[in-house]
Parts: sequence; C-alpha cells; structure tokens
Amino acid sequence: MQLTRAADYAVRAMIHFATLPPGGRITHKALAEATGVPQSFLAKVLQALVRAGFVVSRRGLEGGFELSIDSTRISIVDVIQAVDGPIALNLCLMSGKTCNERAWCAAHTVWTRAQQAMLSELCSASIADLAAQTASNKAQPATAQ
Amino acid sequence: MQLTRAADYAVRAMIHFATLPPGGRITHKALAEATGVPQSFLAKVLQALVRAGFVVSRRGLEGGFELSIDSTRISIVDVIQAVDGPIALNLCLMSGKTCNERAWCAAHTVWTRAQQAMLSELCSASIADLAAQTASNKAQPATAQ
Repeated sequence: MQLTRAADYAVRAMIHFATLPPGGRITHKALAEATGVPQSFLAKVLQALVRAGFVVSRRGLEGGFELSIDSTRISIVDVIQAVDGPIALNLCLMSGKTCNERAWCAAHTVWTRAQQAMLSELCSASIADLAAQTASNKAQPATAQ
Repeated sequence: MQLTRAADYAVRAMIHFATLPPGGRITHKALAEATGVPQSFLAKVLQALVRAGFVVSRRGLEGGFELSIDSTRISIVDVIQAVDGPIALNLCLMSGKTCNERAWCAAHTVWTRAQQAMLSELCSASIADLAAQTASNKAQPATAQ
C-alpha cells in the first residue's frame, strides 16, 4: 500500500520540470541532482514520462528533456498512472476484474470510499500548482517541520 | 500503491471471525473455504493475526481458530497494520524517516492529506460493523452490482 519508487521519482521530476521557464530544458544529470533521484533509476522514469507524452527528449549540444504537456492540466494521479498504470487500492477495485464477493462483501464499499478519498486529495492540485508552491517554499528561509 | 494480498486476506478472515457467535471457532480449512483464501497463504495470515493478539489457536478435536479481541474495537487499519506494519502511502511519510526535502516539497503535503483521507475511511467502520453488514448482505437476494 505504498507508492512505488518509480512513481515517487516521476512526481518529483514532473514538479521540477514545471518549475523551469516555458520551453526550459534540463539534462538527465542535472535533473538527477535537482530531484535527488539516482541517475540509473531516473533514466527508466524519464522513458515512462516520454512514453506518456509528458516529456520530450531533445538531442544535441543544447539537448535534454523538456515538458511537452501543460502542467496546469495534470495532477499527481496522472503522473502515477503514467508510470505504474491504473491505481487500485485493492485488487477488487481493478478495472475489468470481477470480484465474486462484491455483492455481499462490506469491505468492498470501504475500499472504494478510501480510494475515492485518496484520489480526491491527489487530484486536488495540478503539477503546476505544486511547482509554484515548491519554488515559493524554497525561497523562504528554512524552518524545522 | 496496492494493498498486499496478505493484508486483504487478513481483513477477509477477521470479518469472517466476527460473523461467528461469541467464542465461535473455525478450522483452518473451513476458514479458507469461507473466505476464498488459499489454505497455504491463509496459514501465514493466521500466524500474523495470532502474533497480533487478534486470534487464538485451540488444539484438539474441537480445535480451530477463534477471535481473541473485541471486533467492535478494531478497524481495517488495525488488521492491515498487524500484517504489513505501519501504513505509509509514500516513503517520506514513514515514521522515523527524515526526508531532506520535506521543508520545501509541496508534494509532501499532498501525500499527507491523501493518506489521512484514506485512513479516515478505512477507520470509519469496525470489523464488527463490517461483519454485520456482510451477514446482512448475504441474507439479501443477490443483485447484480
């Protein structure tokens, strides 16, 4: 019941992309340093983000990765799903799965409500919002939390 | 970000225990049949429930497993934690872990709120409530859902 490392790293990377100026590009190495994600792992995460159409890779001397989607239009949920596929808090909530016990299992209702509550929070801010908040937080003097 | 099979099976087993009359006992085999959990996997789940003090094992001809906790006092969250340990939706929410980015990472706040929302729903009903609801649902004519 824990986010995969790949999805967490993808969220961090997408928030960092969204802090760059429009059309801003960053190298794999610089992104790894900025996000604290190991370079080898980041390569796989970037592949998934490229496949999802969230990021493009540019070659050449000025090459690197840049955002190819409007970060005001996607949330953490979109990023998680781009990397890990559809979110299902329990196997019985997976789309296409038919649970024989659904008709009478009272826990099914609880799993459904818990997933909805979680997704509602994860959708509550866009990646652009989170990037703006992160940039604002970094600009403040550090405080213990 | 999905519940482990062990935790799901433990919740099913605990709900079934709570449908039994007070002091009611059930064999490993009968519990496997009632919950649809493979017997070999159920053995590990029952060990975890015994270790947590939720269930006791009785030997002898009339032996089997029985509830040893008041099912009105525990929720799905307690059962998950008995099997899988503390719930943390992301690594940065694990107790004792210090995330260097917490002071400025805007996603941290979202993970926290999403976890709280999910836990709130998972705590909203006791295992006894779910057992009563399940028994009531089973007593109704089956309907497509």
